[in-house]
Amino acid sequence: MNPAFEKYIAETVTRLRKPGLLLVSTNKDGKSNVMTIGWGLIGVFWRMRVFMVAVRPSRYTHDFIRDSGEFTVNVPREGLDDVVQYCGEVSGKEHDKFSECKLTLLKAKKVKVPVIKECKIHYECQVVHQLSVTPSLVPARVKKIFYPRRDYHTLYFGKILAAYKKRSP
Amino acid sequence: MNPAFEKYIAETVTRLRKPGLLLVSTNKDGKSNVMTIGWGLIGVFWRMRVFMVAVRPSRYTHDFIRDSGEFTVNVPREGLDDVVQYCGEVSGKEHDKFSECKLTLLKAKKVKVPVIKECKIHYECQVVHQLSVTPSLVPARVKKIFYPRRDYHTLYFGKILAAYKKRSP
Repeated sequence: MNPAFEKYIAETVTRLRKPGLLLVSTNKDGKSNVMTIGWGLIGVFWRMRVFMVAVRPSRYTHDFIRDSGEFTVNVPREGLDDVVQYCGEVSGKEHDKFSECKLTLLKAKKVKVPVIKECKIHYECQVVHQLSVTPSLVPARVKKIFYPRRDYHTLYFGKILAAYKKRSP
Repeated sequence: MNPAFEKYIAETVTRLRKPGLLLVSTNKDGKSNVMTIGWGLIGVFWRMRVFMVAVRPSRYTHDFIRDSGEFTVNVPREGLDDVVQYCGEVSGKEHDKFSECKLTLLKAKKVKVPVIKECKIHYECQVVHQLSVTPSLVPARVKKIFYPRRDYHTLYFGKILAAYKKRSP
């Protein structure tokens, strides 16, 4: 692991909040999907660099990550805000978001899940742990806002196998 | 919340890995303790800025955080490596580490737990969720290295109420 991780973290977290990052996953049939994430934690755990993402069980992405045990997080370049918004609004169950949004998939370096060419920073992650949000320990206000359908997030802890700036196709 | 969060995150994560950060907590009797952490995740969750810390149930700090529902994370200034190492090696059950290490406690802005004057960046956190590492989902190699005594970490998710550079006493 190179020191890129620390170098990109500020920009990653800033853009996580606005407009969001693109989470890519692949199911057991080799089909990939993308969704937008506005939440996530980055740091160190079990002496590994880790990117934790939160995915509701109802999301198409949820079982894709469970299937492959991998995901990539991609920080969009400027000018993609509309795409990032769209990828957060529609489901891969009904839409091929890569095609609709003209997003190009590139082979990753360390995982089978691809990265997105139109992004500037890529994280390739391997799931090393997962936990579910515990309903009884969620603050009432949070529960009311985010869990009216009791669709409590799964937290996937991904070991960052590679982190790098935009690579050439 | 000011944008300080994004500004300090790179330095925080870099120094988390080496030499470590100082986690301060306070129990129900008002007694404070400090321990060194080399692991932690930072980012956004439930639309809040969050600092997640991992504490084993056997640690003195564990029940302090449970008691008060708060903690502070302090990024040591340069030259404190010996202190950071010491605070990770001995327990507050037998040692007053603040006194022994000549660490000065200052009143925090948003929480009752103090911050450490001899540090350069401070995070004041309120626990909004907690989860325990699930033994059956820990990779075998991780289990062997970090859990020979089955002392699985509690993950405290702290909402960052304030993040700022060294304040004057």
